[in-house]
Amino acid sequence: MAAPVVLAVDVMSGDHGLSVTVPAALSCLEQHKKLHIILVGDQVRIRAALLESRWQPGKRLTLHHCSEVVAMDESPSKALRHKKDSSMRVAIDLVKEGRAHAAVSAGNTGALMATARFVLKTLPGIDRPAIVSTLPAVLRPVHMLDLGANAECTSEQLVQFAIMGSALVTAINGTERPRVALLNIGSEEIKGNDTIREAAATLQQSTLNYVGFVEGDGVFFSDIDVVVCDGFTGNVALKTGEGVAKLIRQFMREEFERNIFTKAGAAAAMPALKALSRRIDPRRYNGASFVGLQGIVIKSHGSADAMSFGHALEVALKEVEKDVPTRISKLLSAAGLKAAG
Amino acid sequence: MAAPVVLAVDVMSGDHGLSVTVPAALSCLEQHKKLHIILVGDQVRIRAALLESRWQPGKRLTLHHCSEVVAMDESPSKALRHKKDSSMRVAIDLVKEGRAHAAVSAGNTGALMATARFVLKTLPGIDRPAIVSTLPAVLRPVHMLDLGANAECTSEQLVQFAIMGSALVTAINGTERPRVALLNIGSEEIKGNDTIREAAATLQQSTLNYVGFVEGDGVFFSDIDVVVCDGFTGNVALKTGEGVAKLIRQFMREEFERNIFTKAGAAAAMPALKALSRRIDPRRYNGASFVGLQGIVIKSHGSADAMSFGHALEVALKEVEKDVPTRISKLLSAAGLKAAG
Repeated sequence: MAAPVVLAVDVMSGDHGLSVTVPAALSCLEQHKKLHIILVGDQVRIRAALLESRWQPGKRLTLHHCSEVVAMDESPSKALRHKKDSSMRVAIDLVKEGRAHAAVSAGNTGALMATARFVLKTLPGIDRPAIVSTLPAVLRPVHMLDLGANAECTSEQLVQFAIMGSALVTAINGTERPRVALLNIGSEEIKGNDTIREAAATLQQSTLNYVGFVEGDGVFFSDIDVVVCDGFTGNVALKTGEGVAKLIRQFMREEFERNIFTKAGAAAAMPALKALSRRIDPRRYNGASFVGLQGIVIKSHGSADAMSFGHALEVALKEVEKDVPTRISKLLSAAGLKAAG
Repeated sequence: MAAPVVLAVDVMSGDHGLSVTVPAALSCLEQHKKLHIILVGDQVRIRAALLESRWQPGKRLTLHHCSEVVAMDESPSKALRHKKDSSMRVAIDLVKEGRAHAAVSAGNTGALMATARFVLKTLPGIDRPAIVSTLPAVLRPVHMLDLGANAECTSEQLVQFAIMGSALVTAINGTERPRVALLNIGSEEIKGNDTIREAAATLQQSTLNYVGFVEGDGVFFSDIDVVVCDGFTGNVALKTGEGVAKLIRQFMREEFERNIFTKAGAAAAMPALKALSRRIDPRRYNGASFVGLQGIVIKSHGSADAMSFGHALEVALKEVEKDVPTRISKLLSAAGLKAAG
């Protein structure tokens, strides 16, 4: 990394708060010598958390005190109106003010998205931001969006998601013309709905490398980089996939713990099972980007542990280095698309 | 089983046709002594397939010749209009005429649904039939619908699906008041859309045992019997789940085949791995019901092998024995709901 990168980290949010966010931030500082982190939250509690480490506030680690926290189940509108000194809000304010390059939070998705939109605003040409994350797949990780910011979408929005996803993959991976697909179903009488068909027609005429429809199972086995869908479908798909992976892990554990022979088998198979576990470890895929904003905001799973939250910090760092919002803006202008509203 | 059950089996459809459907039908006849199967398809080819078995047409096995087959990629409307002597159509006609209790086909879902609706008609009070199947889950298998018949649904239709799913689970499993949930997302600003909120409000007032919303991962870990969603979401969820399971199997195979030590580990772990594989084997979940029709139609995966197709036959047999359409009718009358159109 050339110039120093400054990340504003909301240390208060998430299921585990400071016990996860502070160690993850410090470990990230150890690994990236030009990184600067601003810990945003209750100063007293942050200082207490730092006592257990060799780190003290200084050149690369600063504290930014704030007095409130948005609860994990708090309504987005309430958080936005009444918690102007929350760790979540202040971390995003720091991005707006140019004092940080990106904000990272494990807080409640709805509140984080509402705050990010309100404070940072969307890029010209974007109606609504989207949530994007990577999923493991056979050929290479796939970027999928929207994962829950927009329960209902117009075809114009789906096209905007395609542009944003494409720009993101080019920025992050250097892929020249990322392969973009629309998530659809293929088994019913009419194959999908009007919105998806309209989006497909627009994408076929666009400069994007649009490759057609993909079904739910195809996401993991196709030669694609970006999968586009509305936020309802994307959220259900993401969580269903996580649920199935968790179910298989649980069934596997049960089968291996059945008796002394299966336990011995598990011990013998441990290296391969560990390698498998690493490949599908959801923590390695933690860190969803809110794309379409005039600034970078990364959302960590609420239940993240330090390793997992650290991965979200890495995603933020990478998006800053690759200047993702600018890349998206450029591709939007090139595509000549205008936002509907 | 008290009275004989007659199944009309479309032997021509599916990726593998007679080489799968005929052996599966014969094996089912071996296991159920009061079962009668009508093999529907090309008589010459069926007779050739029977030569390899000890079965000949007789009291429990009859042939019903027809001259056409609906292709796996044929449009539903074309199949409906131009292929009146297809194995799929004739199998359903036999149900309509009272000569069979249920039809089973591995043919193209769209054409099968269109034909079933046209020939059998929906039950009074049902706007559109739905596709329902079971998924593995931690506590017990979960019935999910719709899985792809209706890409867009009204709240009234979602409520009808809830009633049908509930009646089905009561009929099949004897569960008195099946626990019904609506599939939703919980992470965005507004939590779902108007359709789902309206359906939830109606279900809360209904006599069904409605337990609330469930998210994609919760489907596999909650105390629920029936999950209701529109066909687009359901199809994506089902296929994403299948995709993730397949991806994990592939990664596991790769890790076990990495070197001589991991191969030895795999051998030692084989009994547990086999037990796991059996628990999540998609073939054991093959056989989706088309509910809401005046008759029983079961759809097998197109790619089913004989074991898998046999499972679809078992689903048909069970639905006949439990007289599922009558149960659904009764619950519909009790609920006092009227179809919208």
